[in-house]
Parts: sequence; C-alpha cells; structure tokens
Amino acid sequence: MIKGKDGSNIPKVVIERIPRYYRYFDWLDGQAEKISSKKLGELMDTSASQVRLDLSYFGDFGQQGYGYNVKKLKRELGNILDINTKKQVIIIGAGNIGRALTRFNAIKEAGFDLMALFDVKPILIGERISDVEIHHIEELPSYLDTHEISIAVLAVPKQVANDVARVLLEHGVKGILNFSRTDLEVPKEFPIENIHIIDKILALAFIIKSNV
Amino acid sequence: MIKGKDGSNIPKVVIERIPRYYRYFDWLDGQAEKISSKKLGELMDTSASQVRLDLSYFGDFGQQGYGYNVKKLKRELGNILDINTKKQVIIIGAGNIGRALTRFNAIKEAGFDLMALFDVKPILIGERISDVEIHHIEELPSYLDTHEISIAVLAVPKQVANDVARVLLEHGVKGILNFSRTDLEVPKEFPIENIHIIDKILALAFIIKSNV
Repeated sequence: MIKGKDGSNIPKVVIERIPRYYRYFDWLDGQAEKISSKKLGELMDTSASQVRLDLSYFGDFGQQGYGYNVKKLKRELGNILDINTKKQVIIIGAGNIGRALTRFNAIKEAGFDLMALFDVKPILIGERISDVEIHHIEELPSYLDTHEISIAVLAVPKQVANDVARVLLEHGVKGILNFSRTDLEVPKEFPIENIHIIDKILALAFIIKSNV
Repeated sequence: MIKGKDGSNIPKVVIERIPRYYRYFDWLDGQAEKISSKKLGELMDTSASQVRLDLSYFGDFGQQGYGYNVKKLKRELGNILDINTKKQVIIIGAGNIGRALTRFNAIKEAGFDLMALFDVKPILIGERISDVEIHHIEELPSYLDTHEISIAVLAVPKQVANDVARVLLEHGVKGILNFSRTDLEVPKEFPIENIHIIDKILALAFIIKSNV
C-alpha cells in the first residue's frame, strides 16, 4: 500500500484520480487564481468533501475560506506525479495500438520517453516509427538488462501477453500499462494499469441498451 | 439507473465488470464444463461472494454445490452484452488513435460495425482506412440524421471535444466512448465511458515511484 502524508494508506481509486485533478488545475491555470473545493467539486462532478479528502492524502493544500491556489496546486500535483522527470518507456507490440501510442505526442509531453518498440514479425525489425526503432522480441531480455526501463506498454495479442509479462518482470521493468485483452498473472503488488478498450465499449453498449 | 433482475439498481462498477466476466467465461469455454464462484473469484482476483453478488443482478445463474455452467454463462452474458446484435459506430478524429481503432479487429469481432470516420483536415477526406471512409466533420449532423448510429468514439483534441460532443447529442447518438483528454460536459444520465490513456500512465508512474 502507498502511504499518504499523514501515514494512512491511499486507496487505489484516489491514486487513479490524481491525474484528473492535475488536468483540472492545468486547465484552470491562467483562468483563475484560486478555486474552492465546492466549485472544483462541481466542475469535476463530485462533492466538495470528496475533493478535500482526496487532496488531503497528499498534503495540506487548501485554506479555509480561500480554497486552493491554482498555480500552487498545479505545481504540487505535477511534483507528486513527477511530471518533470523523464520516465523511460518501451512498447511491446508494433500493431495498431502500439504504433498509435508511439506517435501519440501527449505521452511524451506528460514526461515519458519512448525508447524502443518490440515485435515478433521479422519484416518490422529495424523500422522506425516517430524515430523509435522496432527491435525483435528476442532482444527484449538483453535490452532490459542494459537499459533502465520504468514502464512497459503491453499491446500484444492476449495469447502471448502473460509470456511477455513474465520476461518484463524477470528483467526489472517496474510497471506495465496493459492494453492486451486479458488480465495479467503477476504478483499482487506489481504495478499494473489496464486499458481494456473492448470491455469499455461493451459496457457502454450495455448501458445504452438498458437505457432504452 | 439501470435495474437488475430483482428490481434493484445495478451499480456502475458492476456493469463495468460484466465484460470482464464474459472474457473469463469465453476463455473457460472448452476448458471446463462448470466453475464454482470460489474458483472464479480466485481466477479473477476477487472473492466468491463478490462473484455471486455481481452475477445475481443479471439472473439466477449459479447452483448451490454445482457452480456455474460455463457454456450457459457465456451465452447468457453474451446476450446481456448483446454480442450478437450489430451496433453501429462512428469514429470522430482520424488521428493516431482514431486510425488504430478503425484497424482494430477486436472491435468488429465484439459486434461493432464501424460505419464512418470524421475529421476536419481536407486532405484526409475520402481516404479509406480498413474500408471505412473519412468524411468531413461538417457532414456529421446530416450523416447522423440519416443513419442510426448507436456509439460515437471521440478521438479529437481536447479543445474541440465538447463542441463535437454537443453535435453528437443533438443528432441522436446514444453514447460516447471518449478518448479525448478531457471530461465531457453532457447531461448526467447520458452514457459515456472514458479512456484516459495519459491519466492511466501517470497513475502507474506515481505508483511505481511510491513503491521504491
């Protein structure tokens, strides 16, 4: 568990909301000098008390009767999220999703350095996408042993996702952003975030059908 | 709110888990005839009672001492998710993400029919990606008025996301899968699922940093 400023465990849902708070303070910057938890809660479609509770895990940012200083909170949340430190990332799978993410400037702007792509198809090896080279997946272990890679983005078919994940863990990757359509079998405490696109669109279709 | 079989409201988190249950029963099909809630809970990294509670919203599927019949549950969950009905989808934004999703076969296999792409760049208009044509965004209102579109995938820059969302709502789209890096300002009850890639990778980086 990750501990907050006051020593209490920060729930995972709160951690996952921090980038969203950062987005709002980034957006507010230049528009407002300060904002109350009530107003921020309205903007974010949540309650003032939820806002105060969420942010209190990370520090004593608000001031009674004044609210939050926008520039300060943007800076503090940026520090918490380590926006200004380059984090080295590789992408496994040079298919549609892997390629789109390689070309996706927002990832670089958020402080992530795309170092290399890996794929199994011989014809792709050596190709460069947005200046990032595609390596053969067999080179993955030695690449990981000689580079300090923080995050691997997994965009491979579900049938091979766990095999690749095992190699990533064994060779020191610290976390996985998983786009493969399966849940990875890794130790409970290993950092994983899943982006299950098909699950999302199926849930959306279910909600639409049920709304009729 | 969406009501379950017994008339109670189904929490959104439960709805969002249904595609995951479907994935597991699809994967189990051919491997096992039946599965207990205990075993399924272990596979899915949750508890037996959570499994029973989640599935009970949708019907009386399990049998004491027997568990769940895999083929039956796969079929029932497929019906609940309406897997076999084609749902018509358009994608707004023919950038990296929009293109990757157009080429993404898993979306078609899950029952979604990609009808058209829309973009603002004149040079892209008329181009076909995986046989799906790119139309000019100005044609969006008349296209929506003459086609029965269930879902729009929004993959446009955040600056224009709300303008596009407004057009989608006014012209009868029933739900939005939002990849734009902003939260959409739409009526509370309008179906939206967000895929915030940057939020996910920032949360992952935070968890990694905090784990050190």
